[in-house]
Amino acid sequence: MIKLSLGQADKAGLPPGTPIHIGEIKADSVQISALDYNEDQVDFRPRIEAMECRLLAARPETVTWVNIDGLHQVDILQKVGQCFQLHPLTLEDILNTNQRPKLDIYDDYIYLVLKMPGLNLETGGFWFEQVSFIVSGTQLITFQEKAGDTFDAVRNRIKDGRGRIRKMGTDYLLYVLVDSVVDHYFVMLEKVGEQIEEMEMELVEKPEPSTMRKINFLKREMIMMRKSVWPLREVISSLQRDGVPFIGDSIRFYLKDLYDHTIQVIETVEIYRDMISGMLDIYLSSISNRMNEVMKVLTIYAAIFVPLTLISGIYGMNFNTASSPFNMPELNWYFGYPSALGLMVLIGVIMLVIFKKKGWF
Amino acid sequence: MIKLSLGQADKAGLPPGTPIHIGEIKADSVQISALDYNEDQVDFRPRIEAMECRLLAARPETVTWVNIDGLHQVDILQKVGQCFQLHPLTLEDILNTNQRPKLDIYDDYIYLVLKMPGLNLETGGFWFEQVSFIVSGTQLITFQEKAGDTFDAVRNRIKDGRGRIRKMGTDYLLYVLVDSVVDHYFVMLEKVGEQIEEMEMELVEKPEPSTMRKINFLKREMIMMRKSVWPLREVISSLQRDGVPFIGDSIRFYLKDLYDHTIQVIETVEIYRDMISGMLDIYLSSISNRMNEVMKVLTIYAAIFVPLTLISGIYGMNFNTASSPFNMPELNWYFGYPSALGLMVLIGVIMLVIFKKKGWF
Amino acid sequence: MIKLSLGQADKAGLPPGTPIHIGEIKADSVQISALDYNEDQVDFRPRIEAMECRLLAARPETVTWVNIDGLHQVDILQKVGQCFQLHPLTLEDILNTNQRPKLDIYDDYIYLVLKMPGLNLETGGFWFEQVSFIVSGTQLITFQEKAGDTFDAVRNRIKDGRGRIRKMGTDYLLYVLVDSVVDHYFVMLEKVGEQIEEMEMELVEKPEPSTMRKINFLKREMIMMRKSVWPLREVISSLQRDGVPFIGDSIRFYLKDLYDHTIQVIETVEIYRDMISGMLDIYLSSISNRMNEVMKVLTIYAAIFVPLTLISGIYGMNFNTASSPFNMPELNWYFGYPSALGLMVLIGVIMLVIFKKKGWF
Amino acid sequence: MIKLSLGQADKAGLPPGTPIHIGEIKADSVQISALDYNEDQVDFRPRIEAMECRLLAARPETVTWVNIDGLHQVDILQKVGQCFQLHPLTLEDILNTNQRPKLDIYDDYIYLVLKMPGLNLETGGFWFEQVSFIVSGTQLITFQEKAGDTFDAVRNRIKDGRGRIRKMGTDYLLYVLVDSVVDHYFVMLEKVGEQIEEMEMELVEKPEPSTMRKINFLKREMIMMRKSVWPLREVISSLQRDGVPFIGDSIRFYLKDLYDHTIQVIETVEIYRDMISGMLDIYLSSISNRMNEVMKVLTIYAAIFVPLTLISGIYGMNFNTASSPFNMPELNWYFGYPSALGLMVLIGVIMLVIFKKKGWF
Amino acid sequence: MIKLSLGQADKAGLPPGTPIHIGEIKADSVQISALDYNEDQVDFRPRIEAMECRLLAARPETVTWVNIDGLHQVDILQKVGQCFQLHPLTLEDILNTNQRPKLDIYDDYIYLVLKMPGLNLETGGFWFEQVSFIVSGTQLITFQEKAGDTFDAVRNRIKDGRGRIRKMGTDYLLYVLVDSVVDHYFVMLEKVGEQIEEMEMELVEKPEPSTMRKINFLKREMIMMRKSVWPLREVISSLQRDGVPFIGDSIRFYLKDLYDHTIQVIETVEIYRDMISGMLDIYLSSISNRMNEVMKVLTIYAAIFVPLTLISGIYGMNFNTASSPFNMPELNWYFGYPSALGLMVLIGVIMLVIFKKKGWF
Repeated sequence: MIKLSLGQADKAGLPPGTPIHIGEIKADSVQISALDYNEDQVDFRPRIEAMECRLLAARPETVTWVNIDGLHQVDILQKVGQCFQLHPLTLEDILNTNQRPKLDIYDDYIYLVLKMPGLNLETGGFWFEQVSFIVSGTQLITFQEKAGDTFDAVRNRIKDGRGRIRKMGTDYLLYVLVDSVVDHYFVMLEKVGEQIEEMEMELVEKPEPSTMRKINFLKREMIMMRKSVWPLREVISSLQRDGVPFIGDSIRFYLKDLYDHTIQVIETVEIYRDMISGMLDIYLSSISNRMNEVMKVLTIYAAIFVPLTLISGIYGMNFNTASSPFNMPELNWYFGYPSALGLMVLIGVIMLVIFKKKGWF
Repeated sequence: MIKLSLGQADKAGLPPGTPIHIGEIKADSVQISALDYNEDQVDFRPRIEAMECRLLAARPETVTWVNIDGLHQVDILQKVGQCFQLHPLTLEDILNTNQRPKLDIYDDYIYLVLKMPGLNLETGGFWFEQVSFIVSGTQLITFQEKAGDTFDAVRNRIKDGRGRIRKMGTDYLLYVLVDSVVDHYFVMLEKVGEQIEEMEMELVEKPEPSTMRKINFLKREMIMMRKSVWPLREVISSLQRDGVPFIGDSIRFYLKDLYDHTIQVIETVEIYRDMISGMLDIYLSSISNRMNEVMKVLTIYAAIFVPLTLISGIYGMNFNTASSPFNMPELNWYFGYPSALGLMVLIGVIMLVIFKKKGWF
Repeated sequence: MIKLSLGQADKAGLPPGTPIHIGEIKADSVQISALDYNEDQVDFRPRIEAMECRLLAARPETVTWVNIDGLHQVDILQKVGQCFQLHPLTLEDILNTNQRPKLDIYDDYIYLVLKMPGLNLETGGFWFEQVSFIVSGTQLITFQEKAGDTFDAVRNRIKDGRGRIRKMGTDYLLYVLVDSVVDHYFVMLEKVGEQIEEMEMELVEKPEPSTMRKINFLKREMIMMRKSVWPLREVISSLQRDGVPFIGDSIRFYLKDLYDHTIQVIETVEIYRDMISGMLDIYLSSISNRMNEVMKVLTIYAAIFVPLTLISGIYGMNFNTASSPFNMPELNWYFGYPSALGLMVLIGVIMLVIFKKKGWF
Repeated sequence: MIKLSLGQADKAGLPPGTPIHIGEIKADSVQISALDYNEDQVDFRPRIEAMECRLLAARPETVTWVNIDGLHQVDILQKVGQCFQLHPLTLEDILNTNQRPKLDIYDDYIYLVLKMPGLNLETGGFWFEQVSFIVSGTQLITFQEKAGDTFDAVRNRIKDGRGRIRKMGTDYLLYVLVDSVVDHYFVMLEKVGEQIEEMEMELVEKPEPSTMRKINFLKREMIMMRKSVWPLREVISSLQRDGVPFIGDSIRFYLKDLYDHTIQVIETVEIYRDMISGMLDIYLSSISNRMNEVMKVLTIYAAIFVPLTLISGIYGMNFNTASSPFNMPELNWYFGYPSALGLMVLIGVIMLVIFKKKGWF
Repeated sequence: MIKLSLGQADKAGLPPGTPIHIGEIKADSVQISALDYNEDQVDFRPRIEAMECRLLAARPETVTWVNIDGLHQVDILQKVGQCFQLHPLTLEDILNTNQRPKLDIYDDYIYLVLKMPGLNLETGGFWFEQVSFIVSGTQLITFQEKAGDTFDAVRNRIKDGRGRIRKMGTDYLLYVLVDSVVDHYFVMLEKVGEQIEEMEMELVEKPEPSTMRKINFLKREMIMMRKSVWPLREVISSLQRDGVPFIGDSIRFYLKDLYDHTIQVIETVEIYRDMISGMLDIYLSSISNRMNEVMKVLTIYAAIFVPLTLISGIYGMNFNTASSPFNMPELNWYFGYPSALGLMVLIGVIMLVIFKKKGWF
């Protein structure tokens, strides 16, 4: 069962801009790491205090990437917010994990929030982790709900100096990180694709009432997926538009490529939805078909045995054979009983032939 | 049952701009309260006469918030309307509680009308209360159908001077009030979410004909919800546009945030609609499945007992055993009866095995 | 049954602009009335000749409202057309009662055509009457298919000088008349609402095959309703746009209000459509449920009586008790018959308990 | 069965602009007629050679309408194309009768292609004939797949000098011809309307499996109709736009009127589609209802006769009345047999009453 | 079963712009051919090395068409990419065969990627081959997944100098090649059309559970088809827009024609989808109809034989005829037995007549 824990309702009555954490707590404690680099040097600090941010904030000659894992310790996040002079509404949005993917352009930074899908191993369904990005000229701050390894590959690439990443600015870093989020969608969709294929096998081989629930589960998963990728498309489309601050012209092609990938994710989600609704049709028609089969068995039984039973009933009648030569003379025939049995077999065979011809079995 | 009491029909034939109250009377009497504040001072009058409005209307140095509860005493509301120089059409719209959420921009003020959802404890369904806002440079007038506590939290915040509200103008006050209305939608949606979860339990455990009606009830609730949130989105979107008078640039981010919340409400409504239609599919397929079960029971019974009955019928025939050695010699066999019973048991067991293999039970 | 009598087909082959009457004849004869007014005076002539129009056409200092009831006497209408110098296509459109609501802007006037709904008392369905408006600076001409009382209220208001109508121009008059048409939609929708409620009662209490047809009838009514209100919305929206001649800026708010009403009509129609399709689902599921009930009754009967019949069949067999002690010794038992009956009752009770536990009744 | 003979496939591999005829051959030979007129004179030549076109092409003072019936003789059509200096792609499009309705603006002429519906008397379905128009300042060339009488009315009107047609240019002639095509759609839709009404009668009176196929046939007809009218709307809408060469401002109103007619055709098609899908619902529910009826008959039979059969079975048991006073003493009662029959009748009547009360018959 | 092998997932974690081959390997080795031509000369080299590209790249006076078959040897393709100075993202896109059709405009070239459909002879379904085009002023490079004969017709036309192709530039060559891809869609759709017709025959003659799966297969084929043609439309539409570099004004009409063909492909796909969903309805209703038939057979059997069995049961009762004149005197009647049989026949005939009248068989 997918919970749509809005949480939002708990905020009713509080003044806007109040920073409170909404959502599940997915990490033990808030962890802040910083990565400071340019083409010549790299400086990685895996664990810093919120207070140290202030120092990082003032280094124009390098790209500074601050990553925060865990969102539930509001006081620490408020300090981070002050450090980088975030608007109260931005902080509120970062903490509210029911955010819809969106792009907000502030005077000093742009704020981007996305959903990263993950697989819930227990239910086979998805969860979505919220990832927030604050991008300014020389800084990029990422907020994740829990420590994860999605961004590690990028971090290592920066440390190793592979690719062009060390030569580029925060906009390219943003692109690379968002690209790794979008790649995660492909990983998840591949899992869904496998589930759909399994389901189809099940549908063909042995559809059961539980199949219906599984189909509905998949359908709902796709609804949730859809809910998070459509606004993702909008966000990336907005990034592409002219005049977004801190996004350079040099990454235009990269953003277009990213946009194409998002469209591909959306199309796959839509195709899966179509497929799932096709499975529903197959399931429902298979129920009807099975009912037909059951009915046929019943009807064949009835059609064969009911006439035979009548015959046995007739010769079980107690008409007095002595009182009239017309009263059941068969009972006294020499081959009376075999004839009766023979008649029964004959009728049974005729019935079977008729139903066979009708193609009922 | 949800009543779509248009009421509008009663107005057919009346000249436009005639102020008449359309809708249920939800309050005993019209109550007017006024709250007058700026950064330094607060003056709250819980109960004033319509006539006193004139005095309030002429205080440019403070923000004046006049709240009217109850709409059915047309004469009092007309006085209020005259006080604040409202257009006849505005007054007509305020009194007509079947208004669609909308934003009207007049020369001297902007007029906003929204629907606030509430829970009907008897039916488990929603009612919608109409809330109107008149905003000008220093005044904000709110019209509610009945006294409620939704705006109390805001009122207290103003009195206590918490947050930034006392430093801001009528536009921020408008934002805060509309925000509290939107928060109410989240509260209601959480209730619907619970109902959907309960319904799904019911569907899995014991679907009944009444389930269908409950699903339809939920579906309809969502139709009504939808009817009030889609135009709400339009209204907030219009507020954000440039050039709306009395709406300052400083609350631009707040309105964007509000807009995002509305989108989230809409998305949740749409997802609930999808879920409800999924429940319908499950329900219908569960009826078919149960029919299948019933049919199987019937068929198994028939398939087992009908042949046995035939056997008993055969040995109940009255062929004269004396007239021929072929006539039912079994009747005189030493183990005739046990053999017949044994044959019956054998056939029954074979049938059971066949159906078991077919997976029918 | 709703007739979609296009009629248009009869015109195939005729040159465009040929004025012929298409549609049912709903009035006995064409009647022309004229109302001439300004703030100071009113002059009402209930019955004038087509020729007199020429005189009316030349009075710039008053608002002149000419109303024509009945469209089938083409020659009279041609005279009226000449009087007011109408374009041949306008006249053709006025006479063709299968017109789609639209707004045409000509150099000398604007032409508006709407559909006014009415209740067909025989079938319980709707009919739509076509109402055309020709508006120029000082004249407004209305064409109706038959004499009706919809516009009487407006006429009386003008005569009595109530409201602002006498102070305003033809644009306000147009607004008031269109408003009264839109109000008619609310009246009709209220009727539909009642029909929907009745239908739902019927659905809950006693759904029958005829219910399906009634639902379909309602559905179709809504299709027709929809066909006439969607273009109505377009028409009113076009009227609101800048630059429509003869429509003054002073009635901008009134037109916006009118537009809001039209949107409300449309929304109600759409909600009714959703409700009706929900009723269809309920109806179809109720058929399935009833089938389930019937099947259960049958199965319970079979499951109880078939085994009992077998028992009675067994003890009706004619094995020779004399030939062997194993042959049906029960027949000679002292309590043989009561035991057999007891066994039957026992089996019956056990079956009943099983089905009761299964929740089948 | 509707054939979607694309034909296009046969062209795969040929260079673009190759003029080959695609589609059925519907005429015996290509026939060219010419009509040359202005306000003062008319010159009609019912049969001319392709070569003569050159002469016609050079007469600026008259409107020249050349009509070609039959498209399969490619060489003749190529000569015509050369005469009027048509672009190779235009000629290719004229010859390919699977064209989608469209408007192409070339430097020297505009090219318009439409579909004209006709009734296939054998299948009761439609066929669509392709009609192409080439319009320049003083010439209009029409290409039809076969000789038909659709344009005869227009031709006669020109010859007789009725209406304004002789005073107007090629644009008005184009309008009149397209108008006559659109009128044909109304004629066809009226036929469909009749078929729908017949179908509804059939549905109410005696739905059969073949009904389903007929409904599907109608549905498909509407799909085809739709395919040809939606682009027709686009074409006429494009014609209305400013800046289309050879289309004068004086026929603006006529084109708007034509556009309105097309919208009406589209709306009728959409309404028919809705109606047809409503019929499908009725048909499916009527199948279910009939199944219910069949089931009820079966159940009533079973419920009445199965208990009676049990009773007869009981008194057919062979318990030895001699061995015990408890063994079937009824068999020796004076009124034993009548009592048993009476009991049967009683049970039967009770059952009938119960089912009657349940409303099963 | 259609595999949606995204493959994309394997790339998660890699830096953007990394050229890796994604998709099935469909060719043995990468083959490069070059065709160099202008109006006067043609030079075709069926097999060149990647290194030779450099020479070809520098010939402004001829049109150079380089075709690469096979995409899996990344090193060779990287060399080609360097030769023509392709952007890393372009190369990545060329190699990733899950690309969505798109048009990318770079400074030095335009990049176009399409899907070419083909028939999988084993499954009867489609596969889609990716075809990429790089177009600059004098060069056109095509990348195919495997050697195929689609472009051979074009190649021969160039060699033979047929048509205008030798006189035109790379833009016309692009048009001709894309046109041959679009023609392939028509070929495929014709195949689908045949499959639909076969299916309909099957539906009418003998619908089986497998029919449902075939319908679903077709439905899914259309989903895949749709997925590749909708973006194709966008691509060709973009090409038509002003300002696309390397696309001359002289091929504007050709592109419009191509666009029209694409629209026709899309419409056919949509119509096929509608048809397929209509087949689903027919199939489901045919299941219900057959169930009805089965039920009727059962009911007729029951209704005829059950009463007869009761009669035989009654005369099988053992009431003592000796103990009372009321006890089954029929048994001693002279015509007792024939009367009983006659009664049975009578009841059977009456039943048959009743069901005949009801139209059950």
